[in-house]
Amino acid sequence: MAYKTGYGLPADVIWDRAQMERLFERKWFFVGMRGDVPKKRGYLKFELFGEEYFILHGNDGVIRCFVNRCAHQSARLVNDRTGRCAARIICPNHQWAFDPNGGALIHASHMPDRFKQSDECKHYSLTEIPLREAGMMLFACLGDEPPHDEIDRMTEIIAPYTDPFSNAGHGYKRAYFHTEIIEANWLMVMINNRECCHCAQNHKDLLKLFDPSSFNGAFTPEYEMLLCQAQARWDDKGLAWKEQAFEPDENFRIARYPMAAGFKSISFDGELVSQKLIGPFAGRQPEEGTLSFWLNPNCWVHFTSDHIATNWVLPLSENRCALYTSWIVHEDAVEGEDYNEAHMKDVWLVTNAEDVGLCMSMSEGARSKYYKPGPFSPPEQFCTQFCDWYMKHSQ
Amino acid sequence: MAYKTGYGLPADVIWDRAQMERLFERKWFFVGMRGDVPKKRGYLKFELFGEEYFILHGNDGVIRCFVNRCAHQSARLVNDRTGRCAARIICPNHQWAFDPNGGALIHASHMPDRFKQSDECKHYSLTEIPLREAGMMLFACLGDEPPHDEIDRMTEIIAPYTDPFSNAGHGYKRAYFHTEIIEANWLMVMINNRECCHCAQNHKDLLKLFDPSSFNGAFTPEYEMLLCQAQARWDDKGLAWKEQAFEPDENFRIARYPMAAGFKSISFDGELVSQKLIGPFAGRQPEEGTLSFWLNPNCWVHFTSDHIATNWVLPLSENRCALYTSWIVHEDAVEGEDYNEAHMKDVWLVTNAEDVGLCMSMSEGARSKYYKPGPFSPPEQFCTQFCDWYMKHSQ
Amino acid sequence: MAYKTGYGLPADVIWDRAQMERLFERKWFFVGMRGDVPKKRGYLKFELFGEEYFILHGNDGVIRCFVNRCAHQSARLVNDRTGRCAARIICPNHQWAFDPNGGALIHASHMPDRFKQSDECKHYSLTEIPLREAGMMLFACLGDEPPHDEIDRMTEIIAPYTDPFSNAGHGYKRAYFHTEIIEANWLMVMINNRECCHCAQNHKDLLKLFDPSSFNGAFTPEYEMLLCQAQARWDDKGLAWKEQAFEPDENFRIARYPMAAGFKSISFDGELVSQKLIGPFAGRQPEEGTLSFWLNPNCWVHFTSDHIATNWVLPLSENRCALYTSWIVHEDAVEGEDYNEAHMKDVWLVTNAEDVGLCMSMSEGARSKYYKPGPFSPPEQFCTQFCDWYMKHSQ
Repeated sequence: MAYKTGYGLPADVIWDRAQMERLFERKWFFVGMRGDVPKKRGYLKFELFGEEYFILHGNDGVIRCFVNRCAHQSARLVNDRTGRCAARIICPNHQWAFDPNGGALIHASHMPDRFKQSDECKHYSLTEIPLREAGMMLFACLGDEPPHDEIDRMTEIIAPYTDPFSNAGHGYKRAYFHTEIIEANWLMVMINNRECCHCAQNHKDLLKLFDPSSFNGAFTPEYEMLLCQAQARWDDKGLAWKEQAFEPDENFRIARYPMAAGFKSISFDGELVSQKLIGPFAGRQPEEGTLSFWLNPNCWVHFTSDHIATNWVLPLSENRCALYTSWIVHEDAVEGEDYNEAHMKDVWLVTNAEDVGLCMSMSEGARSKYYKPGPFSPPEQFCTQFCDWYMKHSQ
Repeated sequence: MAYKTGYGLPADVIWDRAQMERLFERKWFFVGMRGDVPKKRGYLKFELFGEEYFILHGNDGVIRCFVNRCAHQSARLVNDRTGRCAARIICPNHQWAFDPNGGALIHASHMPDRFKQSDECKHYSLTEIPLREAGMMLFACLGDEPPHDEIDRMTEIIAPYTDPFSNAGHGYKRAYFHTEIIEANWLMVMINNRECCHCAQNHKDLLKLFDPSSFNGAFTPEYEMLLCQAQARWDDKGLAWKEQAFEPDENFRIARYPMAAGFKSISFDGELVSQKLIGPFAGRQPEEGTLSFWLNPNCWVHFTSDHIATNWVLPLSENRCALYTSWIVHEDAVEGEDYNEAHMKDVWLVTNAEDVGLCMSMSEGARSKYYKPGPFSPPEQFCTQFCDWYMKHSQ
Repeated sequence: MAYKTGYGLPADVIWDRAQMERLFERKWFFVGMRGDVPKKRGYLKFELFGEEYFILHGNDGVIRCFVNRCAHQSARLVNDRTGRCAARIICPNHQWAFDPNGGALIHASHMPDRFKQSDECKHYSLTEIPLREAGMMLFACLGDEPPHDEIDRMTEIIAPYTDPFSNAGHGYKRAYFHTEIIEANWLMVMINNRECCHCAQNHKDLLKLFDPSSFNGAFTPEYEMLLCQAQARWDDKGLAWKEQAFEPDENFRIARYPMAAGFKSISFDGELVSQKLIGPFAGRQPEEGTLSFWLNPNCWVHFTSDHIATNWVLPLSENRCALYTSWIVHEDAVEGEDYNEAHMKDVWLVTNAEDVGLCMSMSEGARSKYYKPGPFSPPEQFCTQFCDWYMKHSQ
């Protein structure tokens, strides 16, 4: 069955792992924030199509991405999801050692001197993957010729929104990190994320924070009014807000959105989740809104007055994926004083758990021999955008 | 290795999933009883070859079978094994709504009016599967041209046995339902069910209720005498008893069989499992015997004076199947007063658990490279019948 | 990528299950010791490539190896890992019975007399696998033409080392048995075993017992001195010690190695793990050394003064294997008096658990698309020997 715009993806597209892999070789995908690895030699591990990678903050301040495999006997180099390397990256198996700046093999245990001095030695450096930073966010690409022009353009567009968060003279740290393995096709998770028609019945708590139409671009009159008032307020405060919505060919969407009255952060009770405000809000009042960023193929990120919440999804195989969630706060914020775990994590853990069941259900449905692509409704326009975009870039 | 009558199935037949699927497209298979869904909008879900279906008692009194998938984004419609729908069948994802009588799409949330009024809308009704009722039992078929003549004939033959259970002026309800996932090939489970030579060592408790030769047609002299006495008693009571045993081409077997002296129902202590007698026994004395029905490809059902116990097996894949057991009682029977769970379920839970290990063992053996079909003995005649029948109808 | 001596195996070799299976059809592999089944009708079960086998001590004193499947309906014959058969091997399903000496079908339940008296009956004997005994150790081979000349030669070479353990006028028994399922390619487990460069960081406790260079043949001067002193001592005691190290074509390695001063057995505290000394040490002082034996493709065995510890690995599939460990002691040793479980098992349970993580890590690495064979260092010479040997005999 051929793909038709306005309808779900055909089953043969959904289950084509090679097509999925091509997409991740052609496009930049989100893999964390600088605030996930704020210290030198800090690392964060992720998995993609059965491979392990880690981003590492070098001693030179550059963040790089490496394949998590030693060149000697293919053992895993870093074992934890996140942590900090020693002065060198040391394989736990036979203690081969690599340079945390560029990944070069520095010490090959037990190997003769002639090997250490030979050119062959250079073949055993760590494998590095292209990594770019934009708006403090980190993006990787599996291909040899990543589209640098696309990320250059995105960097320029999002700068007015994200720069105020990066130049306030202080840094960030990660408060919490969560990994959710979802037994579902990654495409279903993204399509589920791109519409809020399922929210009314499935995310009743989340909807207290937001008007659902803020997420799908088909604004209700009530929301138009709320938005209009908020925009005047943002203009007063000097906060960029203009929506850059997904266009058919566009990889991302960014804009500032109002939250419901009284909600100072993304929390079910509306209270701040961290007392140390960040970026443009440092030393000011918190703002009842979010700066939200969505990237095809894999993330949604919300900057509020007190923290940055990132959600990103990576396929492990064609029927399994990992959803990573990170909560980034002011580097001086103190756990137990300025923030506490349950309060901070509540919204995303609850919301994502509600989505997991739906995504698994849709994914199992797409496996069915009775499956046929259904029509998207107008407020599901960004599902159509995602499917069009996927078909264009993955074939 | 070619199939030879009187021997087990060749490995290439046993592990041929396409052949299995053809059988379920050509033959009716048991999927429950009217008593499993006695109320309007009551449903019962089952799985077959990785697909989910549910039978639903319509507002019009007709029981139908649907594929458990929404036409919009392929989500599961009913989530529980058994339950009751709202006035309409509503998808939990985006609230598309379907008619519980015929499955037509009634409400497509967020879709524009031109869609709702178009012919396209009709393409998104629920997928219905042929379902027939005979002797209050429900039979489905996955094929487009189900063999209606076969079920017509069966209905006629079993009517004298089953009609007395359906026309007594009252209904039924399900007391309990049990699902057992068995990591075994479905054919092995059926072959195990079709003989009782394994009972002596593996079902010591069950054998207190029955003479093993009652199940295999190779009657011992002692059993012939017991049967003869029982038949005279059944004649007195006006109960049909003549055995319609499996013939080479036949799909089913039905007859009345005596239980051991003192056993009024299928229970390890011989006591009734429900105090409200059913069908021909309502207002009379219980009978020390069962009306038993076996259908190729997938069930064994026992009607006693006080309840109906159904066991049915459906392949989930070539090496996994689900065994469903249901206990149907008088609609007025009250849990805790007329029956209690442990006492009612004991015989089948114990017996089936004993069989699970044997079926897994046989199934693993059939995977072995050393496997070759072994010979069936004369009292295993219904294994031969089942294998002959399977080879004839599935190729 | 082609195999190159001195480097790890190419990925296509590592994941070629057919190549693995060929190796086990051409070579003898370790499957236990006579002390694992010291009594008549004692058995020990093992698995290989998804098939189950068991070795059985016949009533005639001969130990044989059978496929663990009944010829009737392919059920498993023995269910436990280790145990003792009744007078006959009886299938738990329908009680077909087989001769524990040769596996002949003795009783076919329910089958007619003409079957029992026919030639066909002979086709349903148990399938027997070639088994040989050398130095009280048992070796099986899956092929029809096992290399008897190789085991004849090995028997002759190891006799001076192992005979003193077998002719002391008493027998053995198994004290404990442990099975560890490892989610790793079997080749990785063997390669890990063939070098001790990983020991310094990963087996810190084990290294208190041994000089690491004793395991890799690249002896340090300190170890040379220790070895020299030990050899003089062994000469005095009449104990064979000359090392028969792996040569490129050789299947095995055997020698006596010194342990650290004060270590009378393989225990973390250096104390005997069994008070009843065995073989050449019965009635004498314990010796601070081990007689160690390694066989390609699958074992390492250590004979000390008080027990024999066997470790052997069998592939279950290309990415899963079973590591069996057995502790054999004097038949008169009494649990709780002469030995106790925790003390005896500690070294191998701890050491093997440490290796499991490394083997899984290497195996997952070999699955990676980034995998390339790395170079072995000089002290990893027996890894090279193993890989060369594997390439030669499995292609």
